[in-house]
Amino acid sequence: MACIFCKIIRGEIPSLKLIDTPKVYAFLDIQPLSKGHALVIPKTHGEKLTDIPDDELAEMLPVAKKLALAVGAKDYNILQNNGRIAHQVVGHVHVHMIPKPNEEEGLVIGWPAKEADKGELSAYLEELKGKL
Amino acid sequence: MACIFCKIIRGEIPSLKLIDTPKVYAFLDIQPLSKGHALVIPKTHGEKLTDIPDDELAEMLPVAKKLALAVGAKDYNILQNNGRIAHQVVGHVHVHMIPKPNEEEGLVIGWPAKEADKGELSAYLEELKGKL
Repeated sequence: MACIFCKIIRGEIPSLKLIDTPKVYAFLDIQPLSKGHALVIPKTHGEKLTDIPDDELAEMLPVAKKLALAVGAKDYNILQNNGRIAHQVVGHVHVHMIPKPNEEEGLVIGWPAKEADKGELSAYLEELKGKL
Repeated sequence: MACIFCKIIRGEIPSLKLIDTPKVYAFLDIQPLSKGHALVIPKTHGEKLTDIPDDELAEMLPVAKKLALAVGAKDYNILQNNGRIAHQVVGHVHVHMIPKPNEEEGLVIGWPAKEADKGELSAYLEELKGKL
């Protein structure tokens, strides 16, 4: 298994470990966007959110909350990227907890929102309901 | 209660509802960054992740996973913003599931990472361990 995060979980690569449970592992990012930037990863190897069992996903936000409290982050972003185009670099699911202490440090977000056509959106809703 | 998301949960404001459980509620964003952009919110009112009970947080990523599967998103971002400076607009916790179909649509991310000083980071780790 060549996955760097699987190696971190197994202790084959050192990491700045914060939390280790049977389902998830959390550690400090060594290339942080801000002080306290940490990652939560599931023990199961999977590239995207949809590849991870629900019982492991269920622990990830409560652990991110613990990290935010320990760091004492007032403002912060929780981010989990799926796919290269969505800014994912390591192909093992990871939830970032990124403190946002000021405009310069932390995550930078661009938000190209559009007002959606209400009719189209309602039709799309009906289509999605059949898939849930 | 003036919170717009609490009103949506109570049905006092219409929404494009996708999922409704005793703990969380999911609906389509009406100002989407891309087709399928949806929100998952906890039933408990709270501004930040740290204000929400763990049992509600535990459902949010499994529900976001359901949404990603229903939408058929290949690449996507999961994002939850805490605080104005971190791009939060509505003061009730919400997890975005934002498909990233191409460079132009979806979330735009800026990543001003720095290589951290290893000694400083190790010292900070020890400090955090005492708070976990």
